[in-house]
Amino acid sequence: MTSEDLPDAIDLRRRLHEYPEPSWCEFRTTSRLVDLVEAVGVDECHVGEDAIDSAARLGVPDEAVLDEWHEKAAERGARDDVLDAVEGGTTGLVAVLERGDGPVVGLRVDIDALPVAEPTDADHEPAANGFRSAEEGVMHACGHDAHMAIGVGTLAELANREFDGTLKVFFQPAEEVLGGGCPMVEAGHVDDVDSLFAVHVGFGYPTGTVVAGAEEFLAIRQRRATFTGESAHAGAAPQDGRNAIRAMATAVENLHGIPRHADALTRVNVGRAEAGRASNVVAERAVIELEARAGTNPVLEAIDRRVDGVLEHAAGMHGCELSVETIGRAPRVDSDSALAAVVCEAATSVSAVEEVRRRGAFGASEDATYLMDAVAANGGQSTYVVVGTDHPSGHHTPRFDVDETSVDIGIEVLTGAIEAELSP
Amino acid sequence: MTSEDLPDAIDLRRRLHEYPEPSWCEFRTTSRLVDLVEAVGVDECHVGEDAIDSAARLGVPDEAVLDEWHEKAAERGARDDVLDAVEGGTTGLVAVLERGDGPVVGLRVDIDALPVAEPTDADHEPAANGFRSAEEGVMHACGHDAHMAIGVGTLAELANREFDGTLKVFFQPAEEVLGGGCPMVEAGHVDDVDSLFAVHVGFGYPTGTVVAGAEEFLAIRQRRATFTGESAHAGAAPQDGRNAIRAMATAVENLHGIPRHADALTRVNVGRAEAGRASNVVAERAVIELEARAGTNPVLEAIDRRVDGVLEHAAGMHGCELSVETIGRAPRVDSDSALAAVVCEAATSVSAVEEVRRRGAFGASEDATYLMDAVAANGGQSTYVVVGTDHPSGHHTPRFDVDETSVDIGIEVLTGAIEAELSP
Amino acid sequence: MTSEDLPDAIDLRRRLHEYPEPSWCEFRTTSRLVDLVEAVGVDECHVGEDAIDSAARLGVPDEAVLDEWHEKAAERGARDDVLDAVEGGTTGLVAVLERGDGPVVGLRVDIDALPVAEPTDADHEPAANGFRSAEEGVMHACGHDAHMAIGVGTLAELANREFDGTLKVFFQPAEEVLGGGCPMVEAGHVDDVDSLFAVHVGFGYPTGTVVAGAEEFLAIRQRRATFTGESAHAGAAPQDGRNAIRAMATAVENLHGIPRHADALTRVNVGRAEAGRASNVVAERAVIELEARAGTNPVLEAIDRRVDGVLEHAAGMHGCELSVETIGRAPRVDSDSALAAVVCEAATSVSAVEEVRRRGAFGASEDATYLMDAVAANGGQSTYVVVGTDHPSGHHTPRFDVDETSVDIGIEVLTGAIEAELSP
Amino acid sequence: MTSEDLPDAIDLRRRLHEYPEPSWCEFRTTSRLVDLVEAVGVDECHVGEDAIDSAARLGVPDEAVLDEWHEKAAERGARDDVLDAVEGGTTGLVAVLERGDGPVVGLRVDIDALPVAEPTDADHEPAANGFRSAEEGVMHACGHDAHMAIGVGTLAELANREFDGTLKVFFQPAEEVLGGGCPMVEAGHVDDVDSLFAVHVGFGYPTGTVVAGAEEFLAIRQRRATFTGESAHAGAAPQDGRNAIRAMATAVENLHGIPRHADALTRVNVGRAEAGRASNVVAERAVIELEARAGTNPVLEAIDRRVDGVLEHAAGMHGCELSVETIGRAPRVDSDSALAAVVCEAATSVSAVEEVRRRGAFGASEDATYLMDAVAANGGQSTYVVVGTDHPSGHHTPRFDVDETSVDIGIEVLTGAIEAELSP
Repeated sequence: MTSEDLPDAIDLRRRLHEYPEPSWCEFRTTSRLVDLVEAVGVDECHVGEDAIDSAARLGVPDEAVLDEWHEKAAERGARDDVLDAVEGGTTGLVAVLERGDGPVVGLRVDIDALPVAEPTDADHEPAANGFRSAEEGVMHACGHDAHMAIGVGTLAELANREFDGTLKVFFQPAEEVLGGGCPMVEAGHVDDVDSLFAVHVGFGYPTGTVVAGAEEFLAIRQRRATFTGESAHAGAAPQDGRNAIRAMATAVENLHGIPRHADALTRVNVGRAEAGRASNVVAERAVIELEARAGTNPVLEAIDRRVDGVLEHAAGMHGCELSVETIGRAPRVDSDSALAAVVCEAATSVSAVEEVRRRGAFGASEDATYLMDAVAANGGQSTYVVVGTDHPSGHHTPRFDVDETSVDIGIEVLTGAIEAELSP
Repeated sequence: MTSEDLPDAIDLRRRLHEYPEPSWCEFRTTSRLVDLVEAVGVDECHVGEDAIDSAARLGVPDEAVLDEWHEKAAERGARDDVLDAVEGGTTGLVAVLERGDGPVVGLRVDIDALPVAEPTDADHEPAANGFRSAEEGVMHACGHDAHMAIGVGTLAELANREFDGTLKVFFQPAEEVLGGGCPMVEAGHVDDVDSLFAVHVGFGYPTGTVVAGAEEFLAIRQRRATFTGESAHAGAAPQDGRNAIRAMATAVENLHGIPRHADALTRVNVGRAEAGRASNVVAERAVIELEARAGTNPVLEAIDRRVDGVLEHAAGMHGCELSVETIGRAPRVDSDSALAAVVCEAATSVSAVEEVRRRGAFGASEDATYLMDAVAANGGQSTYVVVGTDHPSGHHTPRFDVDETSVDIGIEVLTGAIEAELSP
Repeated sequence: MTSEDLPDAIDLRRRLHEYPEPSWCEFRTTSRLVDLVEAVGVDECHVGEDAIDSAARLGVPDEAVLDEWHEKAAERGARDDVLDAVEGGTTGLVAVLERGDGPVVGLRVDIDALPVAEPTDADHEPAANGFRSAEEGVMHACGHDAHMAIGVGTLAELANREFDGTLKVFFQPAEEVLGGGCPMVEAGHVDDVDSLFAVHVGFGYPTGTVVAGAEEFLAIRQRRATFTGESAHAGAAPQDGRNAIRAMATAVENLHGIPRHADALTRVNVGRAEAGRASNVVAERAVIELEARAGTNPVLEAIDRRVDGVLEHAAGMHGCELSVETIGRAPRVDSDSALAAVVCEAATSVSAVEEVRRRGAFGASEDATYLMDAVAANGGQSTYVVVGTDHPSGHHTPRFDVDETSVDIGIEVLTGAIEAELSP
Repeated sequence: MTSEDLPDAIDLRRRLHEYPEPSWCEFRTTSRLVDLVEAVGVDECHVGEDAIDSAARLGVPDEAVLDEWHEKAAERGARDDVLDAVEGGTTGLVAVLERGDGPVVGLRVDIDALPVAEPTDADHEPAANGFRSAEEGVMHACGHDAHMAIGVGTLAELANREFDGTLKVFFQPAEEVLGGGCPMVEAGHVDDVDSLFAVHVGFGYPTGTVVAGAEEFLAIRQRRATFTGESAHAGAAPQDGRNAIRAMATAVENLHGIPRHADALTRVNVGRAEAGRASNVVAERAVIELEARAGTNPVLEAIDRRVDGVLEHAAGMHGCELSVETIGRAPRVDSDSALAAVVCEAATSVSAVEEVRRRGAFGASEDATYLMDAVAANGGQSTYVVVGTDHPSGHHTPRFDVDETSVDIGIEVLTGAIEAELSP
C-alpha cells in the first residue's frame, strides 16, 4: 500500500469500526495501523516490546483469550511480521516522522474496543451502512475508531507539510481497562516529547465544539481481590469452614462505606463478585473487582489505604488469605493552559468549529494521564482535547455512534495545533 | 440380554462407575438400567413421564447441558426408545415385579453422579483397576454406583424367589441436587407402597456394620435468589445505580445472622454468589444460591420465613427487584422403628455383618424423605438403611471409593428384609 | 437600666460568656437581652410565641431539662415577665427600631451555647480574666457570646443615628441544633425584611479579615431513628426476638454506604447509637442519630430518600417497627452578591479591617439559611458575613476563644452596611 | 436473735423479698443472713474476703453504685461488722455446721436480685400482701428470695438433727451476672466438699414436681468490648475520623453470623450497644456487651475464638483500638446421677411431692457450675435440684412470683438428701 492507496478518514474509520478488538487483543488493528502508517511513509514504526513494556501491562486477559484473538487476526489477514511482534498481547504502535532537530510533538490516540453487542437494525448507522461490527459481542462503542482515523489522518496531513522537528503518534492499546498507558510510557518513546496532545471525541459536546484542555480527570486504581478460605459441608460441619463469601460480603459493605473526603471528590465501587460453588458448601474462594477514584492523587492514595485496610480485615475476620492485584490505573493530570491556548488558536481557524472552550471538566478517568504525567516529568507540556461529536447515546452503550464530520474536524484542529508547536 | 447375561453385582458396579452422569442427565444410566431390569425379567418398567413428573423437578440444568449429555448417551450406545422417553431430563425408572395380591414393598436407590474429577493414579482403585470415570470432571463419588448395583442385585435375587406381593425398585435421579424425590412421588408409583426401604452405603460406618433405621435427617430447602437493580457508571453517575452487589452483600451478612432456634438445630449457608461485570459499573444483577436446614419441618419453615424477609428487604434497601426459585428440597422424616426391626433381623442372619445398629444419626439431608413421607401419608412405613463400607475418604471427595464387599452385603440384607415383608 | 447603663461591647460579651445556656434553654440569656435592648430603647421587643413558633422547633430537649434551666434562670435573677413568656422553651427575641417607611433591614445573631466543659487554667483567657462559665459543662465555645455583643452593639449604634426605615435584630435560639431558624421564620417577623445580614466570627479567618458573603453552605437534615423489635432470652429462645440491635447495625452499615452523587458533594453520618439492655437479652429497642448533608437542596432530598429506604428496610429485615424524627435541619442558600458588595464597601472604610473578601466558602451547615431563604422568597436579599477573629483552637473545642477586638470590628462593619441599606 | 426468734421459712422469704439488692450490692442481705445463721447457731460464718476472692469477681458495678447500696444498707440497719467485712462488694457468706469427721456436704443458694420494677397492683401477691420491694426498680424476680429461705430453713432443720460430718451452706452473691460462682470457689471453702447440692425453684416445673439432677447447662462467657477510634467533624472532615460506630456495626453483623457448630448447640448475642455523641461527629467510642454460649466447654472455646477474631478485625478495619473484658462466665457441668438418685429417694418420701424426675434439661446458664466443677475436680459429686413452683409469669419478668408452699418442699427434700449423705 502506498500513500495513494490511503483511504479517506471517514472510510478508514468505518473499516476500523468493522473489526473491533478488545483490550490487549488489538492484533488485527495493530497490523492494519502498521499498513496505514507505512503507506503514509513514516520514518520509524515501533511495535511489540518496542512500543509496550509488557511487564507494566495491567488488565491483560487470560492466555486463551489472547490466543483466540491472535488466531482470529491471522484469519482476518493480519501480517505475520506484526503478529509475531505483538504475540502475547503487546499490541499498539508508535509511528514517527522525523524532520530535523526541532521540537518533539506527540499525539496520543487509543485503539481498543468494548464488550458491547452492536445493534443490527437500520436505525443504527453502522448497521444501515454496512460497517457494523463483524465480531459478535465486541463494538467500538466509545469512538476509538474515530480516534484512530484522526491519528492516521493527522499523520498523513503533516507528512505532506514541511516542519522542523519530530512527530510521534502513539496508538495506545487497552485504554478501556486503563492498562495501556503505563506500559507505553515505560517503553520510552514518550520521554523526549515536548508537547503532547491527546484526543477524545464526544463526551456530550456536540459536533462543532472543541474543548482545548480537559480538566478534572479522576485518578483511579482498579483492583482484583481474592479471598481464599476453606470449604466445609454446610450441613455437617459448618464450623470447619473459613467462609470466603462472608469475607467478600463484609468487604463489599465496608468498601462502599469508606468515608467521603473533604479535600476532593471520591468514588468507590465493587462492580464484580464471584464466589463459591454450591449452596451446600461453605465457599472456599471469592473474587471481587473494585475501584477507587479521587479528584487528586494524594486523596486516591488515602482512599486506597482505607481499601487495603478493609480488604485485609475482612479476610482476617473470616480466617481467609487475601491476594490483591492491580488491574487498571491512571493518575490525575490536568491539561496545561499554554498548550490548550495553542489548540484554541488552531480550532478558531477551522471553519466547521462553532465553539471553542479553553477548558472543560472531564469527570472520568483516562490513562492518557500516564503519558501526560511522563511528559510533565521531563519538562514538557500536554493537553487533552475533546472534539465534540453528536452521539445518539452515551459512550459504552450499544447505540453509541459518532458524527463522522467530527473526524475531519479533529484532523484539522490537531494538524493546526501540532504544526504550530513544530514550527513555532 | 437375558437373565444369564446379567453381570455379577461387583462387575455391574464397576461398569456403572465408568459412566457417571450428573443430575437429570442420567440418560445412558437409565438406558443401561432398563436393559438390566429387562434382563432380570420385570413385569413393568416405567420410564420418562411415567416415572418422573417433570413439572415437579428441581435443580434441572440448562437445556444446552441436557442436550449435550443426551447426545453423548446416544454416542455411548444408549437405546433410542429410552432416549426418546427421557428426553429433556425425565431420567430414572421404576421396575416392578408383580406376584399376586400381597403387600407392596419398595426399594429406593439413587443413580446420579457428582461434578468431581476422578484421580488417575494407581492409589485410587477405580484407576488401578481400569474402571475410572470416562467422563472427565464427573465421578460417582458418593456410592450411587453401588446403590444401583444393590438395586439390580436385590431385584434379581428376589425375581428368583417365590413371594406373594409386589416389589417396586425406584431408581431415582437427581438426588445430589435434592431434585428427584418429589417428582418420583408425584408420578404416583409410591402411593400404594406398604413398606419402603431406602439404602445408602458408607457415611463413616465400616464394612460389616449395618444401621437399620437412620434418623435425624435435616429438612432442607435450597434456593437461588436474583437481585436486579440498575447499572450506572461508577465514576460519572454513582447515584443513578440501584446496586445489586450491595443488596447481595447485605443479604449474605444477614442470612448468616439468622438466629438459632431453641427447638431444633438449624443451618443457613450462602454457598455461591455471582454479580456484576466490571469494577467501573454499578452492578445491575446479582445471584446467590443459599440453603436453610433444620431438625424439624416447622423450624425449617420458620427459618425460611426469616430468609424471605432478609432477601426481600436486602433487595428493597437497594432498590432492586428480587426473584427467588427453589432449587432443591427435602423434608425431615425418621425411619419407622418396626420396619427397622425387620432390617435388624435380616442383617443379623447375614454372616458378613458384624454389627447391627437399630438406629443411627444421619445428620444430613436426603430426598428419599419425600418417598418416605408419601408412604407414611398413605399408611405405610419406611426405613433408611445404611450399609457400612470402608471408604478411604469422605463422600463427595475425589478419593472416595467403596469396599465392594459391601455391595453383596447390601443385597443380602435387603433381600432378606424385603422377603420378610413380602411374605410375613 | 437605661442607655447610659449599657456596658461596652467587650464587657457585655464577657458577661454573656459567663452564663452560657444550651439550645432552647436560653432563659436567662433572653431575659438579659430584653434588658439590654430595652436600655437601647427599641420600639418593639418580641419574645415567646411572638418570636418563635413553638410548633416548628427542632431538637427541643426533654421537659425535665427545660425545667431545670428555667428554674436556674430564675435563681440567676431572670425577669419574671420574660420567664413567663419563654416558658417551655420559646427562647430568643426580635428587637425592632422603627423610623419611618423606608426599607426593612434585618440582622441575625445566634445565642445558644454548647455542652463543652470550659478549662480552668490561666492559659485560657476567660479563666484568667474571671469570666469563665459559671455553668459546669456548658460553654460559649462557638462565639455566640460575641455575636450577641455585636447584635446589641450594632443596635445601640444605629439607635443613635438617623435613618428612614426599620431595623430588626433577630436573636435566634438553638442554632447549634439547627433547630431555631425555622421557628423564627414561622413567627413572621422575617417576612417583610428587604435586606438581611447574618454574622459569624472566626471560622479560621484571622482578626482583621472580613468575608462579605459566605457561600457553599451544606444543606443538612439530622434525624433520630428508633427501631422497636421484641426482646427474647438470648439463650433460651433466640428465635423469638425481633432484634433491634441487628436492625441498627444493618442500618449503620448501609447508611454509610449510600452512594456519592455526581451533582454535589454529600455527607452521611450516624454519630450516636444506643441499644439494648444486657448481653443475655435480644435487644428490643435501638436508637440512632444520623445526618445527611449535600451541596444542593435537591441532592439532599435524593440522599434523604436513600436514607429513608435504608432505615425502612433495615427495620423490616429484622421485624422491627421504625419511627423517625427530624431533629435538625437547614437548607442551602448562598449570599447575594449585591448585598455582599455593600458589606465590602462598609468594611473597606473600617480602619481595623486589613483584608476584605467578597466571597468565601463556608463548607458547613447553618440555620441562618432558613431566614435567608425566607427573605429571598419575599423578594429581599441576604448575605452571611464572617468577621475574622484569631481563635486559639477550633470552634466547639474547650480552648476556643475570640479575639475581642473583632467584636468592635463586627459592630463597625455591620453598622456601616446596615446604614447604607437603610439610607440608600 | 436466737434460734427461737427465727421466722418461719415463708415469713423469712417475704422479709427478704422486701429488700432486694442487685449483684455485688447484697450488703443488707448479707447482714441479715449472718443474723439468721447465727440465730441457727452455726459453728463458722465466713464473710468478706473469707467467702469471696474479690480478685476473681466478674460484673462488679462502679464504685459509686457499690457505695450507694452500702450506705443504703447502713440506713436499713445492717450490722457494722458485716458492712465493714463486705465493703467494696465482697458480699455473700459461707455458714458451717461441724459435727465430727464425716463427709462434707454443701448446699449452694444464690442471693441477688434483678433490675426489674415490681408491680403495685393487687393482682401481684407481694403487693397485695404487703411485702412488695421497698427498692424501686429492683426486685427478686427470679426466686432467689425463696432460695435463701430454703438455705436458712435447711440449715436450721439440720442443726436440730444429729449427724457425723460437716454441712456448709454457700450463700452466693452475683449469680444474675454470672459473677459470683468463681470467686466463691477461689475463697477455698468448696475444696473439701464431697457432695454438693444446688437448688433453684420454678423453671416451668409446677409445684409438687422435683427434678433431681438438671442437665444441659450452657457454658457461657459474657464480654464487654470497647472500640476506640477518633472523632472528626462529619461535615468538614469525615476522612479524619476513625469510626467506632462503624467498627461496632461490623462487629454486630459478623458476631451474629458466627457459624453454627455440629458438635453442640451454640448461641451468640450482642445485647447492648452504646456509641458516639451526636449526629455531626464521627463516633470516637463504642461499647457492646455480648455473650456466647455452647453445649460443651470446648465448643464455647471455639466460638469464643471466632468472637475474638471478629472483634479484632472489626476494630482494625476501622482503625480503632479494642479492649475486651469478661463480665460473666460459667462452665458446662452436668449433675452426677448417683447424687441425683439420692435426691430422688429423699423427694419420694416428701408427701407434697407429686412427681420426681431423675433428670431434666436446664437449657440456660448458671454459675453454680463453677462450684460443681470444683467439687468434681476434688473427687466429689454434685447435683442441681429444681424444686417446681407455680409461677404466674416467666423468670426475670415483673409478674414473677413463687408458690410459697414450694419453699417448704425445698427444705424437706434437701434436708432429706443432705442427711442421707451426711449419715450414709
